[in-house]
Amino acid sequence: MIDNALIEKIYNEDRRSIARAISIVESDNSFTSMYLKAIHKNIGKAYRIGITGPPGAGKSTITNQITKLYRKQNKKVGIIAVDPTSPFTGGALLGDRVRMTDIGMDSGVFIRSMATRGSLGGLSKKAIDAADILDAAKFDIIILETVGVGQSELDIAQAADTTIVVLVPESGDSVQAMKAGLMEIADFFVMNKSDRPGSQQAYTALQTILMIKDHNDNSWLPNIIKTVASENKGIEDILNEVERHKNFMKEKGLFLSKREHQAKIRIKEIVEHKLKDELWSETGENSLNSSLDKIIFGDLSPYQIAEEIIKEFKERI
Amino acid sequence: MIDNALIEKIYNEDRRSIARAISIVESDNSFTSMYLKAIHKNIGKAYRIGITGPPGAGKSTITNQITKLYRKQNKKVGIIAVDPTSPFTGGALLGDRVRMTDIGMDSGVFIRSMATRGSLGGLSKKAIDAADILDAAKFDIIILETVGVGQSELDIAQAADTTIVVLVPESGDSVQAMKAGLMEIADFFVMNKSDRPGSQQAYTALQTILMIKDHNDNSWLPNIIKTVASENKGIEDILNEVERHKNFMKEKGLFLSKREHQAKIRIKEIVEHKLKDELWSETGENSLNSSLDKIIFGDLSPYQIAEEIIKEFKERI
Repeated sequence: MIDNALIEKIYNEDRRSIARAISIVESDNSFTSMYLKAIHKNIGKAYRIGITGPPGAGKSTITNQITKLYRKQNKKVGIIAVDPTSPFTGGALLGDRVRMTDIGMDSGVFIRSMATRGSLGGLSKKAIDAADILDAAKFDIIILETVGVGQSELDIAQAADTTIVVLVPESGDSVQAMKAGLMEIADFFVMNKSDRPGSQQAYTALQTILMIKDHNDNSWLPNIIKTVASENKGIEDILNEVERHKNFMKEKGLFLSKREHQAKIRIKEIVEHKLKDELWSETGENSLNSSLDKIIFGDLSPYQIAEEIIKEFKERI
Repeated sequence: MIDNALIEKIYNEDRRSIARAISIVESDNSFTSMYLKAIHKNIGKAYRIGITGPPGAGKSTITNQITKLYRKQNKKVGIIAVDPTSPFTGGALLGDRVRMTDIGMDSGVFIRSMATRGSLGGLSKKAIDAADILDAAKFDIIILETVGVGQSELDIAQAADTTIVVLVPESGDSVQAMKAGLMEIADFFVMNKSDRPGSQQAYTALQTILMIKDHNDNSWLPNIIKTVASENKGIEDILNEVERHKNFMKEKGLFLSKREHQAKIRIKEIVEHKLKDELWSETGENSLNSSLDKIIFGDLSPYQIAEEIIKEFKERI
């Protein structure tokens, strides 16, 4: 049974209940889908901003700065920060410390870190579920911040209305971003630390890459915003560019089709996740275990055993 | 139809045919399973070594050095190097350059890089399939080298008979490795760059962590090998430790049960992969697309639509 009082408290913006609900979707038991069904009619109002880029580009500093600006506009800001590389880069930890002293005490800001590296997948599912809870809790802006190193992280960044890719003017960074699939998902770029030497060349290189892309009057051309986030320079330009992108999307009728596309990706992930659970139920595990002798002693290849298990699964469901 | 001549050529250690077969499993079409079924009876003889660790720890240098030592023992070495972070770290690229001048011209060495970041998953499946091909092509040692930043990469490293985790004596690196899930998969550790200041403290810290773990006479206690790979120091110790681990596993009867466990993980991945293909066939996609209106206009949550699609899928198969 789901706790209807909890849902009411989420609508009433109660922080402890929001945290509890996010813990429920993170633990990913059968309650997740019940809660998300229950709150579904109350989501869709928040504007979602994805922030991604390589480790060390300054994503968490930028998240902090734009959060402060949105707070000045009296907008409530929810932040989901995902960093699966954090054990090695120290990113999430450092970022959290900065955040805590800076915006963590503001009751109009809610921060949740998900650094669940080594988890059994489903990270993007959980992050997006958590964003829905913040949406139902009447946050105006939801920031999904992730390191751009993996399909799962790209999926999270893409689950936003506006996706920002943060780069630094290191040599070749923009070319690397292109290889990494970040070019395709960026609604605009932030060239952070743009007081560094080589910044202008990096800017020009990125601009050249962007010009090559096909575009027409109806297509959005990603801009490059220069910032020095540590000195709070260029942060307003980011907010203006988010606004410009939002208006463009709405004018051209692209806003809903983008959300539709995102819903499609998300539904696919939920379906796959649920089927996996059914597949590896007790019966599925038993059928796998009983086949293992055959493979070790060389009779059947893993592919042949896989086929047998699929056959058994189809008969079962 | 599969090309039986190709399979014969793999058995005859023909490099071009090996490369072609790996390209087939990389492209992951329906031929993959046919080829792997065909070669299945000829695999299992190679000894597989997994090498993982954080970016910059010196994994590719160590891979090169141990390859050269194995070559002196007249063993053929196949290397599958996976680095999904390479667009940003430059890792795979740099590593490949080192490799190419060093061991790339040796006909007893076969190197394949898989830096397929942003691919649609299945990277560990492809890497392990490629290892099977090298196994059938009579390579004595297969090294699976991956950056330890993600479940998929951990899966690859674990698909080995002996898994080595390479660390450097940076402050707290061993604690981070523990968080990252690397402690669980390491059969032993290499503390590379151990001529650096702070090396002894890092060694002691890692040793302390390892002592805490439960162990008895029948359990393997991971050792720490000190190296300076760039100066070729400690490399023989790595080979000796691999040998010691291999002998321990065989004496205690753990060798086959480890391979059985790996086969289980692999079969699971193949089953999930195949079911996904069936799920999102034309019919599955249509059923998804026709549901999308409902979600955008707020009637149904993504979770409810997912349930409908699963129902339809079960009726279909």
